[in-house]
Amino acid sequence: MQSGPGPDQGHGEQDALARLARLLPTAPAGETWFGDDAAVVRLPGWGGAAGLGEIVGRGQAGPLLLLAVDAVVGDVDADLALTTLADLGWKALAVNLSDIAAMGGRPGHAVVSVVGLSPPKVEELYEGILEASVLYSCPVVGGDLSQGHEVVISVTVTGWADERPVLRSGARPGDRIWVTGPLGAAAAGLRWLRAHGRPKPATAEAALVRAHARPRPALAEGVAARRAGATAMIDVSDGLVADLAHIAEASGVGFDLCPEPELPVAPGATLEEALGGGDDYVLAFTMAPRTDAAGVFSAAGLPLPFLIGECVSDPGQRSSAGRALPVTGWEHRL
Amino acid sequence: MQSGPGPDQGHGEQDALARLARLLPTAPAGETWFGDDAAVVRLPGWGGAAGLGEIVGRGQAGPLLLLAVDAVVGDVDADLALTTLADLGWKALAVNLSDIAAMGGRPGHAVVSVVGLSPPKVEELYEGILEASVLYSCPVVGGDLSQGHEVVISVTVTGWADERPVLRSGARPGDRIWVTGPLGAAAAGLRWLRAHGRPKPATAEAALVRAHARPRPALAEGVAARRAGATAMIDVSDGLVADLAHIAEASGVGFDLCPEPELPVAPGATLEEALGGGDDYVLAFTMAPRTDAAGVFSAAGLPLPFLIGECVSDPGQRSSAGRALPVTGWEHRL
Repeated sequence: MQSGPGPDQGHGEQDALARLARLLPTAPAGETWFGDDAAVVRLPGWGGAAGLGEIVGRGQAGPLLLLAVDAVVGDVDADLALTTLADLGWKALAVNLSDIAAMGGRPGHAVVSVVGLSPPKVEELYEGILEASVLYSCPVVGGDLSQGHEVVISVTVTGWADERPVLRSGARPGDRIWVTGPLGAAAAGLRWLRAHGRPKPATAEAALVRAHARPRPALAEGVAARRAGATAMIDVSDGLVADLAHIAEASGVGFDLCPEPELPVAPGATLEEALGGGDDYVLAFTMAPRTDAAGVFSAAGLPLPFLIGECVSDPGQRSSAGRALPVTGWEHRL
Repeated sequence: MQSGPGPDQGHGEQDALARLARLLPTAPAGETWFGDDAAVVRLPGWGGAAGLGEIVGRGQAGPLLLLAVDAVVGDVDADLALTTLADLGWKALAVNLSDIAAMGGRPGHAVVSVVGLSPPKVEELYEGILEASVLYSCPVVGGDLSQGHEVVISVTVTGWADERPVLRSGARPGDRIWVTGPLGAAAAGLRWLRAHGRPKPATAEAALVRAHARPRPALAEGVAARRAGATAMIDVSDGLVADLAHIAEASGVGFDLCPEPELPVAPGATLEEALGGGDDYVLAFTMAPRTDAAGVFSAAGLPLPFLIGECVSDPGQRSSAGRALPVTGWEHRL
């Protein structure tokens, strides 16, 4: 699963999850357990006419369900002096919706576990959760409240995909790499907040801060990319280069990005923030070279995606215009 | 959702959840959001032959899915000096499986969010999670690891019920009240641990400590009670009287328990631990007076349930042999 930002020191989340994955039983064919933005599981078979809800046993294949889980920790993932509890609540749901978006899925329902907040603070948190819940049609249907010394909001979101969800593992050499929006705004917003505090409304800085505090899950873009034939997809949470490296590792390919001046850096952000800042929650996806991704997005009424590079056959290559890139990015320290 | 134990001081979890529930949109007919052991949601309609996994839109009714979420906080829900991380992992999954059991459901899949543990400790935790996962056929399919100063394990479990899940709200005056096992062992085990530390293996004290450290979700009992016609059900996590009060409030009934000497107190536990200790994770259910619950359990090869009282029409009554009971029980302070 994807995680929010945090300094990468020592063991990283990906390493620890890989160690854990070795302890876990293997997923049956057609399911994906661990290692992608969301888990893909098959529900038990449903017999009879659709809508009766009769279960006829595990032998018969049922529909696919997506499950995404992500925790937001108060003092790690957000500086509570700089953002509001409503922002934190929004973000806790939005990052999970982004995981569903990265599979090309649509959200179903959410459950929320909150530690370390008492009324009325927990209601402030829920204001933000419910705003995102209504906007993205993902009802919050259950929750748990516990006491604790640290604020931890753990959200699980279900989802589904009409056809096959898009995994990280399907990219092939020659596939083009696209992103659904400009990069670096969230990191630039956090930089502004730390330096200056809250900006005035309706300024360019306010837009950057909003990208950090209220990330937008790219749900419509994820569905469009899946329908257009995306071969692999991920949301940009750790940082573009780090997240493309996850696709590369899962797919057994490398990647070569456009020359750096051609990459879509958000206005107000630096190139470094665009490549390594993370937390943007745009989607990065790969697609066969003949596929007209821009045409598909345009026909769906969505902003045009940006072509940023292509997959190469050398699985170790991470470059921009042939020049090696440092694999920057953010990972939780464990 | 049910929660683990913690001292009830000031605002309680139930109060806070009730306040939140007023902010939430109302569940559509046939679904249950908040306020029960697990949420009950209808998946979008599935068209075509079973097994194709084609979704035909939200208009058509689909099968019911159960969603349970519960967090275990290291220093609140367990004294890490007294129990092991493997025990904590077991318990984090088991309490969620118990919520599924309390609906009469069967578990589907689990996702796990862990805060505040680094390798190799997170692997010790997962040992216990995976033991319960294998024993109760609930694969862990996804997870998230985050840094933090406090250990928080938040688990979400999916589940389903072949027919209608059993809610808290269906008890009627005159219904008999049953529990699936003796009460108080978990509280007695915790008392032993605090006073004496780990007991010698294969002693009576070891069995009590095991009831505390490795609670057993009563999944088979929950299915049997649902099939036998249980009208309401809950798992005993807060304490018998407090949990029966949840059924009473949801159903608009009161209850009168057997005379206290007839209540099933676990060997080694006190009556107070049986009535108020909580954390036993046996199921309490109500059933029409003519239904032979013992016969149904016996036919299923399960230990016989205990008849402990009956529902009465006065919604304010909580008594034992007509004598008022204090509503004891444990609730997280918020």
